[in-house]
Amino acid sequence: MGVTFDDIKHAAKMVEKSALVRTPFLYSRRLSEKAEARIHLKYENLQRTNSFKARGALIKLDSLTEAERKAGIVALSAGNHAQAVAYHAQKMGIAATIVMPSTTPFVKVEQTESYGARVVLEGQTLADCREVTNQLIENEGLTLVHPFDDDRIIAGAGTVGLEMLDDVADLDILVVPIGGGGLISGIAIAAKAINPDIEIIGVEAGLYPTMRNALNGITVDCHGQTLAEGIAVKNVVKRTVDIVREHVSSIIVVEEDEIEQAVNQLLTIIKSVAEGAGAVGLAAIMQQKSRFKGKNIGLVITGGSIDSRILASILFRELERSSRIINLRIEIADQPGVLAEISALTGSMGANILDVSHKRTFLDVPAKGASLDMMLETRDSRHAEKIIIAIRSAGYKVIRLESKA
Amino acid sequence: MGVTFDDIKHAAKMVEKSALVRTPFLYSRRLSEKAEARIHLKYENLQRTNSFKARGALIKLDSLTEAERKAGIVALSAGNHAQAVAYHAQKMGIAATIVMPSTTPFVKVEQTESYGARVVLEGQTLADCREVTNQLIENEGLTLVHPFDDDRIIAGAGTVGLEMLDDVADLDILVVPIGGGGLISGIAIAAKAINPDIEIIGVEAGLYPTMRNALNGITVDCHGQTLAEGIAVKNVVKRTVDIVREHVSSIIVVEEDEIEQAVNQLLTIIKSVAEGAGAVGLAAIMQQKSRFKGKNIGLVITGGSIDSRILASILFRELERSSRIINLRIEIADQPGVLAEISALTGSMGANILDVSHKRTFLDVPAKGASLDMMLETRDSRHAEKIIIAIRSAGYKVIRLESKA
Repeated sequence: MGVTFDDIKHAAKMVEKSALVRTPFLYSRRLSEKAEARIHLKYENLQRTNSFKARGALIKLDSLTEAERKAGIVALSAGNHAQAVAYHAQKMGIAATIVMPSTTPFVKVEQTESYGARVVLEGQTLADCREVTNQLIENEGLTLVHPFDDDRIIAGAGTVGLEMLDDVADLDILVVPIGGGGLISGIAIAAKAINPDIEIIGVEAGLYPTMRNALNGITVDCHGQTLAEGIAVKNVVKRTVDIVREHVSSIIVVEEDEIEQAVNQLLTIIKSVAEGAGAVGLAAIMQQKSRFKGKNIGLVITGGSIDSRILASILFRELERSSRIINLRIEIADQPGVLAEISALTGSMGANILDVSHKRTFLDVPAKGASLDMMLETRDSRHAEKIIIAIRSAGYKVIRLESKA
Repeated sequence: MGVTFDDIKHAAKMVEKSALVRTPFLYSRRLSEKAEARIHLKYENLQRTNSFKARGALIKLDSLTEAERKAGIVALSAGNHAQAVAYHAQKMGIAATIVMPSTTPFVKVEQTESYGARVVLEGQTLADCREVTNQLIENEGLTLVHPFDDDRIIAGAGTVGLEMLDDVADLDILVVPIGGGGLISGIAIAAKAINPDIEIIGVEAGLYPTMRNALNGITVDCHGQTLAEGIAVKNVVKRTVDIVREHVSSIIVVEEDEIEQAVNQLLTIIKSVAEGAGAVGLAAIMQQKSRFKGKNIGLVITGGSIDSRILASILFRELERSSRIINLRIEIADQPGVLAEISALTGSMGANILDVSHKRTFLDVPAKGASLDMMLETRDSRHAEKIIIAIRSAGYKVIRLESKA
């Protein structure tokens, strides 16, 4: 008969008694101004284990029988679900096995092991991992904790919606990322029970519009690298598709560059680290501003598990887009003193040199000439322009190169 | 007669009625484990205008007479104080003038102007700016809003302490950054009134231990670039020195590398963007673990205004420290096919090449040889080691270069 509002209210009581965080739900003035709407953010990235997954895992593990607890549990995930399951299993004294692809970064393995879980690294693909998981279930009698095809997991996730409406009663729209659809299913059941007029909008990544395809009866094999790997799900299930069909008014699909920009905005404006999957909601609002204009919106930042290198690269690319970092190719005579002259010039104007490369071998440079590539840090795009003009005025040919990041 | 507990309670009522945020005060399991203590973080980086400064500015501006409001106000700041003052001035319909050094990045000017403030860019040094400010006060009859030498500002800042103890009554120690000393003064007055046994510890940056010097009667001219520019104050004042002498048990001084590491920890573990000044508290706890062991600590993340480039660079440097990014110099025979061989090798092991430079002109390379510098992204330090061993086993001489960042 599926998940009911009562299930979610019951789950909320358990969440409240647990060590989980009543995460903040805060109005953002600056994002609201940008979107010409009222945007409230639910910081599930500040949840224990840094994602909403900790809620469902709590409810599911608590529901296990004594025999199931003794036998132990297994989950297949290298992401937030793994951390969430391992965290609660340790607290409840349940032996947890987590199956991950063998290419999983050691830091993720280590983090999961730090919760006392056994990590099984096997298989290159998800299909391989699934086989390993099935074997463990069969041979060791473990109970599978599925990330979304489970009523308890959905009820736990639904507590996010309950808290949002408890804090801000008059929300018009909830914007929720969709991977397997567990989160949006739980939130929709709770929110619609409280206010049947509230609108629920789902968001998927352009490379993995799995739920939208399922609703339209389309079967497509999704693949590819996405920044939103937390919602890169190839197959949804009847349980969540049915709930989404009933309660979700539409699904917005966002592309990689929009996701990247949203992560950057959350970091620089909201001062919060969101993973790609956690930022798609903001990307959706920014993509379809007219649709959200003037509305009172609840937006879930689902998680904060993003690789440091990806994050650094996103910051850096945005600096290049906004001309805070510029790459110049300057044609120079191949004679002593020129580098000194140009660097003295840029230095006097307050630009930092981040990288220099001096080359004599490019064919597009006269035989007696050379080419100087400089990466400069500037104060802003106006400053960047002034510097380029100054180098030109000093008699050099300058072209601006595209981003290298 | 100075700031009283009643002043702070009164300020708290005004904060509650305003658009300011009741910022979260959350326990961090992972930081607590690292420090072997109980650490609660007060997220003032999620405050309006991204710092606690918005509290004091509210109380101060609200206290102005009708005549003062009409004449307008002036503040000298390129940082959080500027934003805070401009924000409230706009809300209250007071004309605000903000004086900033002429080298201030345009984005900061723009942000302040977006609150309707007039920005006066004049002077290279703070002394120059002070002169401009004094002229404005004299010529235009503006009222100065000082960032810390003001009882209203201190009372406003004190509301941070009130909220922390309201949320978690049994805190043993509060750890608070010190710039001019306004924040710690307000927090100390509130906290000591609620619980006389609570310990208040201040934190200063190694380049600017101004308060500690003042307490010890030492006069030193502090200078230098610090990551914690928000607390890089050259002169404290009698008002705050007196309060700190009475209530603060000690001041911990943290160095630049410790501040950098704390910013990184807050970003990667707590998923929150803190500026250098906002991270010094965590740096202090990590520096003196034995002193904090087992204690229940309240820690203020004072603000989140950090430059994107600095943040990207901090992330990148930490990746190098943890061997997620390695720089190798490989000695090779200068003949075709070698680069292909080595990049095939690293690629097959799952390492991404981030940068390559192939040079024939280094003197430490045999005349017929060449040197190949590679920047590689690895999964972790174990993976990095395996890659180096594999390149060596293929017959090449490899040395690992120091960080370039």
